[in-house]
Amino acid sequence: MKAAIMGYGVVGSGVGKILRENADIIAAKLEEPIEIKYVLDLRDFPGDALEDKLTKNFEDILNDDEVKLVCEAMGGTKPAYDFTKRLLEAGKHVVSSNKELVATYGFELLNAAKKANVNYLFEASVGGGVPILRPLWQCLAGNHIKKVYGILNGTTNFILTKMYNEDMPFEQALALAQELGYAEKDPSADIAGADVCRKTCILASISYGKHIDPAQVQTQGIEDIQIRDVAYAKANGYEIKLLGYCEKLESGKIDAIVSPFFVPKENQIATVSDVFNGIVVVGDMVDEVFFYGRGAGSLPTASACVGDMIDCAMHADKRKNFGWGARDKDFVENHSACQSRYYVRGTGDINAVKKALGEVAFLSLQGAPLDEVVFLTEAAQESELDARLAAIENFQIEAKIRVLT
Amino acid sequence: MKAAIMGYGVVGSGVGKILRENADIIAAKLEEPIEIKYVLDLRDFPGDALEDKLTKNFEDILNDDEVKLVCEAMGGTKPAYDFTKRLLEAGKHVVSSNKELVATYGFELLNAAKKANVNYLFEASVGGGVPILRPLWQCLAGNHIKKVYGILNGTTNFILTKMYNEDMPFEQALALAQELGYAEKDPSADIAGADVCRKTCILASISYGKHIDPAQVQTQGIEDIQIRDVAYAKANGYEIKLLGYCEKLESGKIDAIVSPFFVPKENQIATVSDVFNGIVVVGDMVDEVFFYGRGAGSLPTASACVGDMIDCAMHADKRKNFGWGARDKDFVENHSACQSRYYVRGTGDINAVKKALGEVAFLSLQGAPLDEVVFLTEAAQESELDARLAAIENFQIEAKIRVLT
Repeated sequence: MKAAIMGYGVVGSGVGKILRENADIIAAKLEEPIEIKYVLDLRDFPGDALEDKLTKNFEDILNDDEVKLVCEAMGGTKPAYDFTKRLLEAGKHVVSSNKELVATYGFELLNAAKKANVNYLFEASVGGGVPILRPLWQCLAGNHIKKVYGILNGTTNFILTKMYNEDMPFEQALALAQELGYAEKDPSADIAGADVCRKTCILASISYGKHIDPAQVQTQGIEDIQIRDVAYAKANGYEIKLLGYCEKLESGKIDAIVSPFFVPKENQIATVSDVFNGIVVVGDMVDEVFFYGRGAGSLPTASACVGDMIDCAMHADKRKNFGWGARDKDFVENHSACQSRYYVRGTGDINAVKKALGEVAFLSLQGAPLDEVVFLTEAAQESELDARLAAIENFQIEAKIRVLT
Repeated sequence: MKAAIMGYGVVGSGVGKILRENADIIAAKLEEPIEIKYVLDLRDFPGDALEDKLTKNFEDILNDDEVKLVCEAMGGTKPAYDFTKRLLEAGKHVVSSNKELVATYGFELLNAAKKANVNYLFEASVGGGVPILRPLWQCLAGNHIKKVYGILNGTTNFILTKMYNEDMPFEQALALAQELGYAEKDPSADIAGADVCRKTCILASISYGKHIDPAQVQTQGIEDIQIRDVAYAKANGYEIKLLGYCEKLESGKIDAIVSPFFVPKENQIATVSDVFNGIVVVGDMVDEVFFYGRGAGSLPTASACVGDMIDCAMHADKRKNFGWGARDKDFVENHSACQSRYYVRGTGDINAVKKALGEVAFLSLQGAPLDEVVFLTEAAQESELDARLAAIENFQIEAKIRVLT
């Protein structure tokens, strides 16, 4: 089958490499090998193995009827949305690693694929090389998904691991991540949680059947995490992790958030360190399942793209029934109305806290100042909790972090 | 779509329950619901929700052209092999949780499915509710699988966890597992590794493309693990786990074995305790991925069966290209020729060991007798290592356990 790669950066070049180096194993599964006819990129790649396939003109791919399969690894929504839509409408299968595109326009593109009876697959868009979307959609299809949450960004997890294991302040850990090539020069999309938000939207859309937009998901990054809070986590049996989190509420709405969480050590998610990703799915029948591996990097991400390409090539005339419904602006519950436990660190009078909150679990840390009051709350609506915290006399909140339960 | 369940025990009744209780979510994915028309079992189930579907006659299912989909949860090969083959030949999709059947006759049954252009799927046969076969076959299709290994039996892992965490002797831990319903009255298939062997064969057949028979895989259970060796593992940063293990060798053959292993604490497999299952796949492109969850139990296992049933119903006229090649009696390397590190505990003279083996890592344990000599060997062929160990003067081997590297 003739194919094209759009975007020849980290992921796209990895796809080229896998198709070349593992041609034997791919050929063994297919009647016809996958052959790259075009590589779309505005840059030149002198000496590259696919140099003679390079084009700067998208129309070459769109108008070539021989090309039945395209891997989109451009990133961003412009021009990826327009390109992808036109390819699908032209009856070509498209696979993608582009989480921003899927999180923003997944519903529209899946619909275009359905109309044209072709596949639009994007296993690489969440968890990089970790198989998660296909297992979630197919293997767990008989379950109501109660919760799905995970560590979806390797850069921030690397930083948090350094803060946790080596008491390294945030700025120093970020600088180290940049030095090692794990973080961009402008690290804001990772650090502030936008990347995790997109992946969370994709997980939620698959799990709950309606398109969830990044704008619907309250998103907080890791910039405000203090070494002091890391120390309390360590001393009391918790990790601190940046999670994308969604849960189906009894109301039928969903609680979706990107935020740092206190994670109990016993949870499998607590075992995910450095640049690795890990995702927990809780189904009503299967209970808890956990997926772990490399969430980024050229070859792991390309491995997921190539898996999708092989699936398309193997079943070229057989569209997979895969997709979700339209947006529903009221589907995500206002976060202040969601229930959770919280870790709270503040300064003030412990007796005032006891009087106001009653049953809370106080945390201790050797050598802490006498007026530092730190505790885990019972589960409560955030708005209600905030009101109760604000009403405590002589108590100044320094940090408030959600607790995974 | 009209369907049947064959075998209404732990798994089969779970399938009935999920189809009933989660009919809403299943209907949302399918144009037509999955409706159970027959349940095949020799027993009666008075008062059961599917009581009026019960039949003792297989021919009722085989000869009913309305039935397009059958879940086989009978276990064993007789009559499951004959029944499954005839159903596939009659053009019905079959899903199965039956690891013994797949490990023994998978090649023949997949071929029968191919000829009839129907699906034979068995996600539930390995790892129970844990999605592993579909991710391995589809998501990782672009990888050469370097290794695949895992904790594939909850009963033995529960026993080992008790031995490890509570210093409980094997017999006592087994009795507890029986009391809690985790182990059968006759626990031999679990304890001696036969159950793990079947699952290992299925993983190896998918990963390496040729049918691997249980008879080809050297299998050792957990009966001979001593608390003394558990103590050495704990004191030196290891867990002891019963693993199904396969690795592609440079020769093109595979190293496949079921055996207890010393597992380094840093490996994700070491985090799998109690009755849980966990599987690591190492691909040449994706590196290491890990899957974790409930490997047994009515609803988790049935969750996997129902996922397969939905896949069949969703793509009823679209057979998945899934299968593997015929047996090759020379494909599995003789175990004595495979390389590995070993943990060795013996009695004798440490200097004689040093003289014979040179570079080995000696392990210590507080209060150990002076003549107890314990070490981890370098990687070596087992036959060569055995010869060298046997040649050490005044050294009596008490235990030898493979080390996961």
